[in-house]
Amino acid sequence: MKLIYQFNEGNKDMKDILGGKGANLAEMTSLGLNVPPGFTISTTACRKYLEDNVLWLELKETVLSNLRLLELKTEKSFLGNRNLQPLLLSVRSGAPNSMPGMMDTILNLGLNDTSVKLMADFTSNERFAYDSYRRFIEMFSNVVAEIPRIEFEKQLESVKIEKNYNSDSDLTISDLKLLIEKYKKIYFDFEKTEFPEDPTRQLFLAVEAVFRSWNNPRAITYRNLHKISHDIGTAVNIQSMVFGNMGKTSGTGVLFSRNPINGNDELFGEYLMNAQGEDVVAGIRTPLEISELNKEFPNIYKELFDTSKKLELYFKDIQDIEFTIENGKLYFLQVRNAKRTPLAAVNSACEFVSEGLIDKKEAIKRISSKDIENLLHPVFDDAYLKKSKVVGKGLAASPGAASGKVYFSPADVTIAKNKGEKVILVREETSPEDIEGMLYSEGILTSKGGMTSHAAVVARGIGKCCITGCEDIAFNKDEKYIVINDVVIKEGDFISIDGSTGNIYLGEIPKVKLDTNENFKILLKWLDEFRKIGVRANADTPNDAMHANQFNTDGIGLCRTEHMFFNKIRIPIVRSMILANYEDERKEYLDELLKFQREDFVEIFKLMDNKPVTVRLLDPPLHEFLPKTDVEIKNLAASMGLTMNDMLYRIENLKESNPMLGHRGCRLAITFPEIYKMQARAIIEAAVISKENGININPEIMIPLVCDKKELKFIKNHLVDEINKVFKEKSNSVEYHIGTMIEIPRAALLADEIAEEADFFSYGTNDLTQMTFGFSRDDSNKFLFDYMNHDVFSTNPFSTLDKKGVGKLIEMSAQLGRTTNKNIKLGICGEQAGDPEALELYSKLGITYLSCSPFRIPLVKLALAKLAINQDSAGQSITN
Amino acid sequence: MKLIYQFNEGNKDMKDILGGKGANLAEMTSLGLNVPPGFTISTTACRKYLEDNVLWLELKETVLSNLRLLELKTEKSFLGNRNLQPLLLSVRSGAPNSMPGMMDTILNLGLNDTSVKLMADFTSNERFAYDSYRRFIEMFSNVVAEIPRIEFEKQLESVKIEKNYNSDSDLTISDLKLLIEKYKKIYFDFEKTEFPEDPTRQLFLAVEAVFRSWNNPRAITYRNLHKISHDIGTAVNIQSMVFGNMGKTSGTGVLFSRNPINGNDELFGEYLMNAQGEDVVAGIRTPLEISELNKEFPNIYKELFDTSKKLELYFKDIQDIEFTIENGKLYFLQVRNAKRTPLAAVNSACEFVSEGLIDKKEAIKRISSKDIENLLHPVFDDAYLKKSKVVGKGLAASPGAASGKVYFSPADVTIAKNKGEKVILVREETSPEDIEGMLYSEGILTSKGGMTSHAAVVARGIGKCCITGCEDIAFNKDEKYIVINDVVIKEGDFISIDGSTGNIYLGEIPKVKLDTNENFKILLKWLDEFRKIGVRANADTPNDAMHANQFNTDGIGLCRTEHMFFNKIRIPIVRSMILANYEDERKEYLDELLKFQREDFVEIFKLMDNKPVTVRLLDPPLHEFLPKTDVEIKNLAASMGLTMNDMLYRIENLKESNPMLGHRGCRLAITFPEIYKMQARAIIEAAVISKENGININPEIMIPLVCDKKELKFIKNHLVDEINKVFKEKSNSVEYHIGTMIEIPRAALLADEIAEEADFFSYGTNDLTQMTFGFSRDDSNKFLFDYMNHDVFSTNPFSTLDKKGVGKLIEMSAQLGRTTNKNIKLGICGEQAGDPEALELYSKLGITYLSCSPFRIPLVKLALAKLAINQDSAGQSITN
Repeated sequence: MKLIYQFNEGNKDMKDILGGKGANLAEMTSLGLNVPPGFTISTTACRKYLEDNVLWLELKETVLSNLRLLELKTEKSFLGNRNLQPLLLSVRSGAPNSMPGMMDTILNLGLNDTSVKLMADFTSNERFAYDSYRRFIEMFSNVVAEIPRIEFEKQLESVKIEKNYNSDSDLTISDLKLLIEKYKKIYFDFEKTEFPEDPTRQLFLAVEAVFRSWNNPRAITYRNLHKISHDIGTAVNIQSMVFGNMGKTSGTGVLFSRNPINGNDELFGEYLMNAQGEDVVAGIRTPLEISELNKEFPNIYKELFDTSKKLELYFKDIQDIEFTIENGKLYFLQVRNAKRTPLAAVNSACEFVSEGLIDKKEAIKRISSKDIENLLHPVFDDAYLKKSKVVGKGLAASPGAASGKVYFSPADVTIAKNKGEKVILVREETSPEDIEGMLYSEGILTSKGGMTSHAAVVARGIGKCCITGCEDIAFNKDEKYIVINDVVIKEGDFISIDGSTGNIYLGEIPKVKLDTNENFKILLKWLDEFRKIGVRANADTPNDAMHANQFNTDGIGLCRTEHMFFNKIRIPIVRSMILANYEDERKEYLDELLKFQREDFVEIFKLMDNKPVTVRLLDPPLHEFLPKTDVEIKNLAASMGLTMNDMLYRIENLKESNPMLGHRGCRLAITFPEIYKMQARAIIEAAVISKENGININPEIMIPLVCDKKELKFIKNHLVDEINKVFKEKSNSVEYHIGTMIEIPRAALLADEIAEEADFFSYGTNDLTQMTFGFSRDDSNKFLFDYMNHDVFSTNPFSTLDKKGVGKLIEMSAQLGRTTNKNIKLGICGEQAGDPEALELYSKLGITYLSCSPFRIPLVKLALAKLAINQDSAGQSITN
Repeated sequence: MKLIYQFNEGNKDMKDILGGKGANLAEMTSLGLNVPPGFTISTTACRKYLEDNVLWLELKETVLSNLRLLELKTEKSFLGNRNLQPLLLSVRSGAPNSMPGMMDTILNLGLNDTSVKLMADFTSNERFAYDSYRRFIEMFSNVVAEIPRIEFEKQLESVKIEKNYNSDSDLTISDLKLLIEKYKKIYFDFEKTEFPEDPTRQLFLAVEAVFRSWNNPRAITYRNLHKISHDIGTAVNIQSMVFGNMGKTSGTGVLFSRNPINGNDELFGEYLMNAQGEDVVAGIRTPLEISELNKEFPNIYKELFDTSKKLELYFKDIQDIEFTIENGKLYFLQVRNAKRTPLAAVNSACEFVSEGLIDKKEAIKRISSKDIENLLHPVFDDAYLKKSKVVGKGLAASPGAASGKVYFSPADVTIAKNKGEKVILVREETSPEDIEGMLYSEGILTSKGGMTSHAAVVARGIGKCCITGCEDIAFNKDEKYIVINDVVIKEGDFISIDGSTGNIYLGEIPKVKLDTNENFKILLKWLDEFRKIGVRANADTPNDAMHANQFNTDGIGLCRTEHMFFNKIRIPIVRSMILANYEDERKEYLDELLKFQREDFVEIFKLMDNKPVTVRLLDPPLHEFLPKTDVEIKNLAASMGLTMNDMLYRIENLKESNPMLGHRGCRLAITFPEIYKMQARAIIEAAVISKENGININPEIMIPLVCDKKELKFIKNHLVDEINKVFKEKSNSVEYHIGTMIEIPRAALLADEIAEEADFFSYGTNDLTQMTFGFSRDDSNKFLFDYMNHDVFSTNPFSTLDKKGVGKLIEMSAQLGRTTNKNIKLGICGEQAGDPEALELYSKLGITYLSCSPFRIPLVKLALAKLAINQDSAGQSITN
């Protein structure tokens, strides 16, 4: 049972024993970097302490013998030798997993009334020595004895008031000495014992404090949340201090081996001579660019440059390096993989591949979905963002950033847009009719609805930024203003919304656009090389299809025909069709719609030559299409030759208490088979026309909301009849398939029967989640917040697939389906397509393709490529 | 291969060979009844004919030799002996299963130009003989040669017009003779051959026609629908005719061995001398009561009396006997178990048991659920019903019959009721607030909602008759009238509604009340002896509990606490509680409600001493409780000290797009745990108070709409804390259980996890059906009609359990639940409790109890007793 490791005794793989920080310091040391020497008390020691609650003799002795080694290495003295510079220590916790809530750091441990004077002499900086001593007492008292910092701040403030000082730097040396006495008094008052002068006692108390902090309530909560065992314990890192402020040949800085903003292969960083890290942070002096160091100290610059290159080669990634120069000698304090912007992430990953440092798999692993998400949407400029006030927060429903003037109706948005204004549409919730207004807006903000509300789904589909469910918004529609948390925002006021955080800001914030560059395109190709599951787009219009092609879509997995119904010319026909009382009347309007739908399909098919296109027949409840304002209703009544009362009566008749569970999807086709027949005709006629133009499309016709085999069969019979008519009329034919959505629990339970009538299944995970939980997508936001808050749910089942429940149904039904139709094709379309655990399930079940919004295609491809790479490396067999 | 059986060669168990009719005639003959002799051609012969399509020699010879036997027995001549009365025959089909669509009957076969004269002589009734001949030609031509009847009717009409006759009876003998010639001409024109004079040829043609009719399209459709094999074939019954119109000592009649209206042990029936059965039907003469026969022909009466008693003893049931007297000789034409009223069914079954004729099991088997249903609800008097006009039809949502003046709001109902009027409440749909109005009404009629809508469920619960979903009703609320299929019904007009048929009538129709008599109570006890599954009541009030006790309930399976919230004093408090913005404010109102709930429970517990009571905590979405009219909203705002705008805003905030999938059930308790805590406190305080009063109640607290184990656990923890507080305060305790509804598909899928936290599961089949199908209970009526119409569904899944889907979930979850909690108690509460196939499933799964509306308890007990009896007789093992 080895209790303590010198830094040169460990390496990066010893995290369990040395903790993350300790393993890193050991690795740096073993790489030959000049790391300020030190040692690590192992987690083994911590575990024993947590059992006994006392530092035992053997541990103490081992600490002391290692301290002695440290004194020898640094040629400094900890216990007090007036001829040597005092050895001051930093003491830090370091668990195997990074863990906030535990004790962090005590600096300058070892200072006391004697050593402070020695430090003053050695640094020739008395003020620095006493200020360090003052800070050490405060830090130690706070961390070890848990005395509130406010007690010390009060003393400091009273001196500053008394002396009429503006800043801490006005304090004289004698002020500092006085404060030190007062600080010690505070310690005594709280602890009923003197502040420990003996450095060894200081150290043991600090070590115990680190050990104890493992069981801080905050640390325990954190471990519970992240499912980390409570039995691991933390290591303690004890390291000699080095000082960048010991004169003109001392200094401190940060260096990146490449530019972390754009990934360019150039040293990047800044430094400050005769300064400590905290001086940089405090902003008292402005640091210099790292290239300046080459002029001042070319040797040190060269050493830094060489080391950074060496480290990059070793770690095969951009390195973030903290260094200190003490009396001309370079020390490395920390080395780690650099945080970078999404742009830098993609660029550097591709560069590393072309330089041969890493392979494509590794490059893919390094890209996160956040990187991709951010690359595809403009983001607010950080510099301005910091100065902006958050007035409210909603759900981050569709990523991106947008500023614009607020308008509260799609009509007003259109007017403003035509005037050339940038607009944010703010509404309680959106409906299919608002699409034009949404298209004209920079972004959408709603007070109701969740991550899969209409606003959220459409916004993601059209790549607009969107915040939903901001329940703090109160509307005053008459006077055209809203109130968010007491802030009044009038029509035409500027706001900015961040769809990646859900934050709402007052005013306009400049944006940065991370254009999709060449490397991004290369990366996309690599993803296609590795992934084993198809990725198709949810695309309802030629425009959507074009976007999807930009990301090399494998086809269209969900073409929602109802979205073709909304536009100024078509919607009155759709409305008349819905409100018609007789089949003959309805057919007239359907014939008009047929032309429009056929044209749309011809356009879409042109873009999808040789790719599969799955078209879903009409799905939403009919009343969603109905006119809402009095004027619209009046106009429609006039055009249909109805009295206003008759019209209102027909509209009233279509109302439902629970439209999600109502007359929608294929249920419409049981009542009005002619609607689906028209749609099937439009699809097939378009496919035949395409064929005549040399374009190859074998449409997949998808029937939504099926719950029973006979239901599917009834509708299929109607469709096949109609399609055969088309073939006869055209003296031509195309191959086609008819399948069904699996989105009703009963369909999943009876998938074996249903598969007898279906060429394919497409899982609608949104609806399936809705029905399996009995959670309305539009209403559940309100209470799901409480579920997450009380830790009843760890995730929102509409954003992360519920493996246990919904996943079980998907698994059951895939297996059942194959018992009667072994070649049945399985697809997924839903909002959780990027969830890695869900992808594992889909891969296991042999899903053929996932379908998602065009703008999410790269994200899903990334997740699928990563999954395939992981499976390959785990040597798992992969279903196709 | 025996082709033909004389009636005395068979018995009732030979249906497969002789068909149903043939077996019955054989049985009557073998019992020694004087049945007009005859024989049956077996189904074996039919099957051979259907293969060869020709009557083969052996069959023809066998028919002829049996005919010869018949001539000997009857001392009549078929082939023509001028000294003997002609032997006329009836030829009828008779398949093993009664089957409409096949050839039925040819009477008087054997008549020709020669025998008609003989018949005229023997009967001394020339007119009768020629009229019979005319009818025979028409019947034969139609049935055998498929000549449309209209051809013959036209001839008849033209004679009547020419001679200015009013009725067929005005036809003279010469008219008839003329018509006979014309009829034969028609036959010739169609068949290009003379009408067959030879009786043997007539007979063979008729036999072939019967055989062929097995494959009538209508018969095939019928067999497909009822899953009857197409390979069975039909038998042919050939029987000698007897005539009740051969003079004063001839006659015909119908007799019941007991009164089929009330079951009394007295001969019941009527007869007519010198008449044929069709004279009675035609209503030309009025038949006499059977007791009159005792005066006219005491010997025949005695023979009838003795035979009817003998038959009743033999068949152990009330007998329905058709007889004919030919020249003083009594013939029995048909004997079968009598159709009877529900009252007669119950009374006679009980009488038979006390007379030792049958055992209790047999008595139970003879009672149908319709009998019980009708016994419990008054029905319209048939005599008046026939004269009443059906103006519309809705769903038969709650049985019974009611007449009253229509009113369109619960308030108007109350006013009218206070004036002493009988009222029918007519509304689009009802809500919990309408309960008072519903209680005051004779019946309820709604234009929306299905079999499990609020109106339907409540009506069944309180035993009111109810029709829902009558979509033909158009409301004019301002002028207080409705229009049903062009009939205008104003407020205050009388209508009558039949909740057993869904029919709506104009005006008032007198009712017959079949009071629950002593025999019914005896029967109820027998049901309790046999059934193996508990039956509890859905009871929300002491009144419900009392009703349930009338039917010996095993306890309460579902006490819906929300129904306690609706009454004038409580509802404003409930509303204030819901609209409170802060927990403190809400608690004040909850404390007030606590008192009311506790009182209710004390009352209910008093009635349920030593029986289990399952209380479901608050379930519906909160907005159901909110005020709707402006006045109510204004008053509430005033009482809560809110502005009207604030109040409207809060109300608006509670609105949901799909309340069924919204913030309801235990989701309310995740957001507001204090509501469920109050309810748990009320239940437990009431149980402790009951205990102090010597009443033993171990309450079962049921949490609705659970979908996840952690959700249940979170709520349970809150409840247990609160209950322990009560125990401490009261220094007393009671045993209690906490369980959950299984009504969300996910709960069924994860029942193993959930069972770890639940003492019991109660399946809410209404909600489970709703979620499994994705069908809103309130909206699906509209399209389910089309589903049934197109034969996509054969039953409404809200009335008949969907075994394949919902049943699968129930089965899965029962099995999963037992893997982690092997003693978990399982109950069912839903509207399909009486469905026999569902009961088989429940029995197989070891369900402990079913819970239903108090008024359905006898029905469910009947179904369970029958199930147990069937299982016993099938020797199956029965789980408890």
